[in-house]
Amino acid sequence: MYGIIATWRMALEGISEAETMLEHDASAADALETAIRAVEDFEYYKSVGYGGLPNEDEEVELDAAFMDGDTLSIGAVGAIKDFANPVSVARCLSKEPVNNFLVGAGAEKYAHKHGFERKNMLTDRARTHYHNRLVEENQKASQDRELKPYAGHDTVGMVALDQQGSMAAATSTSGLFMKKAGRLGDSPVIGSGLYVDSEVGGASATGLGEDLMKGCISYEIVRRMKEGMTPQEACESAVAELDEKLKKKRSKAGDLSLIAMNNKGEWGCATNIKGFSFAVATENLKPTVYLVQFDENGKQYFEEASEEWMDNYMKTRTAPLIWK
Amino acid sequence: MYGIIATWRMALEGISEAETMLEHDASAADALETAIRAVEDFEYYKSVGYGGLPNEDEEVELDAAFMDGDTLSIGAVGAIKDFANPVSVARCLSKEPVNNFLVGAGAEKYAHKHGFERKNMLTDRARTHYHNRLVEENQKASQDRELKPYAGHDTVGMVALDQQGSMAAATSTSGLFMKKAGRLGDSPVIGSGLYVDSEVGGASATGLGEDLMKGCISYEIVRRMKEGMTPQEACESAVAELDEKLKKKRSKAGDLSLIAMNNKGEWGCATNIKGFSFAVATENLKPTVYLVQFDENGKQYFEEASEEWMDNYMKTRTAPLIWK
Repeated sequence: MYGIIATWRMALEGISEAETMLEHDASAADALETAIRAVEDFEYYKSVGYGGLPNEDEEVELDAAFMDGDTLSIGAVGAIKDFANPVSVARCLSKEPVNNFLVGAGAEKYAHKHGFERKNMLTDRARTHYHNRLVEENQKASQDRELKPYAGHDTVGMVALDQQGSMAAATSTSGLFMKKAGRLGDSPVIGSGLYVDSEVGGASATGLGEDLMKGCISYEIVRRMKEGMTPQEACESAVAELDEKLKKKRSKAGDLSLIAMNNKGEWGCATNIKGFSFAVATENLKPTVYLVQFDENGKQYFEEASEEWMDNYMKTRTAPLIWK
Repeated sequence: MYGIIATWRMALEGISEAETMLEHDASAADALETAIRAVEDFEYYKSVGYGGLPNEDEEVELDAAFMDGDTLSIGAVGAIKDFANPVSVARCLSKEPVNNFLVGAGAEKYAHKHGFERKNMLTDRARTHYHNRLVEENQKASQDRELKPYAGHDTVGMVALDQQGSMAAATSTSGLFMKKAGRLGDSPVIGSGLYVDSEVGGASATGLGEDLMKGCISYEIVRRMKEGMTPQEACESAVAELDEKLKKKRSKAGDLSLIAMNNKGEWGCATNIKGFSFAVATENLKPTVYLVQFDENGKQYFEEASEEWMDNYMKTRTAPLIWK
């Protein structure tokens, strides 16, 4: 068995490529890196890699992590600027004996010394988003101004299983649009943004990093799978519990969306928001995008994305943007 | 009931001050911040705050985190330079609605804007350590050169409980001596370096951050206490399992030392190294330093530090240092 699962529709092209690699016996780690690089490289995805939206200083700062499920080796970068593929830097860091998690200028120095591609990650389109956002905010009354993470914030997180039974997980994101300089979310944080153990399975998160970290949610999902839950049971119960806990202790919960796969290629997803999409492919399932829907009892179910939805998705992503 | 527990002997003066505050009904958060600041301010502790040992570029980069057990609010700084009290910056960040985890130049900008005290954290003594280490390394054959985290790396991590039943946890460290610029360990990572939930208890870690993060160990200990384990049972079982898992998957395990306290003021500690010390005070126990010892079966037990040990500790910390 082999498989790969990822947060959001934007992962589809990447996991399609990865699925072919896995079919031809590539390692989970190689397939995963390829899949995430595809998302990082596509300039119209405004929350990951090239074209990602900038922080409040108009600089694109990127977070990424990589975890090897065989060895538990971890690598992560936080707030790194002007490198094309943060996930590849993270994977490279996972091979170091120590110093596996580097941030800011130190991460850039490491990436530079290891020959990674330099690239100004701020596109004209992202610059337009930034400008327009400032214009829109300035038009609002001050009490209505708010940081809305989903105005362009979707981390790509993935878990892959290869035919040898090895697993890997990885994340990549530009984080919250208009975040403070140097802000890290859950994506580079092992246990929160991702976790994987080839003896069990892996999980990865997207949503409000500040709340995802309060529950070490990816670790918790893997732990539940280890205790015998299916990926779906583990995702649903862990997301529901964290959502409830945050509401009880803080009166509200940020967006929490999780995907998981176990070492048999079974997969699951849970979210506390409407409109979450994810992409999955296994030996038995061609690359497919699902949308999470909720029935009248609030119970979630998955619906394959229609052709119309898919067309509309790409149209809105690539629609011309007017400088306000 | 009230109480406070901390990693390492160096916390003693801080927790003594905190214990008096807690006795007089101070909040766990206030007592904790005071205790950690005391460690940060003492120039002879070479792994925390002022006097902390520098990274490979001879710059002192500091990590700290703060977590509020009532609200699960988190604040953390990573790789911050030239601020006197990282733990206070972390606590301030825990009160922000988002952007709670800041690193590098962004963290410094935040601290500057919020009026925190600037201080060059590199002491003459730390500069001498740095110089001597380079001299020593250069004298070794290249195959013998090794990064040994405990050559001056002891994170202070604490958990406190106040008379109202509120709990808090915090960490502060200069990280690995000779670490790469921008390197983060477990200390600013919620779930690994620290975790606390006033409904259960809290835990905090010191050791090799890169390995502690592979087990989300502080979160895991709190989770075990929630399931009914005592702090001691939770620490011992979680440390033993992570140690075993790392040895199985990686053939070796880095240093793992954990302290914990539950919301009844019961406490525990476990480690996989010889020579670990910790400091604890509760309503029923004056501030005390314990050393962890192992019997012939490898079972750990605690021994109160003797007067001789205490005298020797401070003498070695403050002994004159020769520039080689």
